[in-house]
Amino acid sequence: MTQPSSPTSNQDALAQLVRHRASIDNLDAILIHTLAERFKQTQAVGALKATHDLPPSDPAREEKQIARLRQLAADAELDPDFAEKVLNFIIQEVIKHHQAHRA
Amino acid sequence: MTQPSSPTSNQDALAQLVRHRASIDNLDAILIHTLAERFKQTQAVGALKATHDLPPSDPAREEKQIARLRQLAADAELDPDFAEKVLNFIIQEVIKHHQAHRA
Repeated sequence: MTQPSSPTSNQDALAQLVRHRASIDNLDAILIHTLAERFKQTQAVGALKATHDLPPSDPAREEKQIARLRQLAADAELDPDFAEKVLNFIIQEVIKHHQAHRA
Repeated sequence: MTQPSSPTSNQDALAQLVRHRASIDNLDAILIHTLAERFKQTQAVGALKATHDLPPSDPAREEKQIARLRQLAADAELDPDFAEKVLNFIIQEVIKHHQAHRA
């Protein structure tokens, strides 16, 4: 008889770790490409606002956006506070980057 | 004859703005769902590391990860520094969140 394999052996755990890391690498690639496309869209919005008489910000839209993203996060079992924090960081970095680019 | 429409009229610009915002909303939904799945993966990694004798961090992997993401960003015309900053923020927030959850 062959040695019974334990599902919690360190070798199994290491194999599971390798699979999780491969998934994390795939997800990070999605994040990078989504950020790249989001950045192109916000650049286009910035160009539109700069060349036309459009309001620089829309507090009603921003409030609706945040409420929607928090709901999406909750539905996906992600802490809404965590989701809002990350999205706010991205939004602030995008604003900084656009400002630096214009300067 | 009807009034000739200017491609740069404010009405056109507003219509373009609406389209860009719809794309940004879609991209933000991708970001939220990708973050939710990434968080599930890192939770599984944390559980594996806690119950098995696995090294808590792997500097060689982390260095390789960052180099790969910077290259992906450059290929997608996204500033690699911006990409690294956002990913580092996500990684740090995930670590904080996991630590708070364990405490």
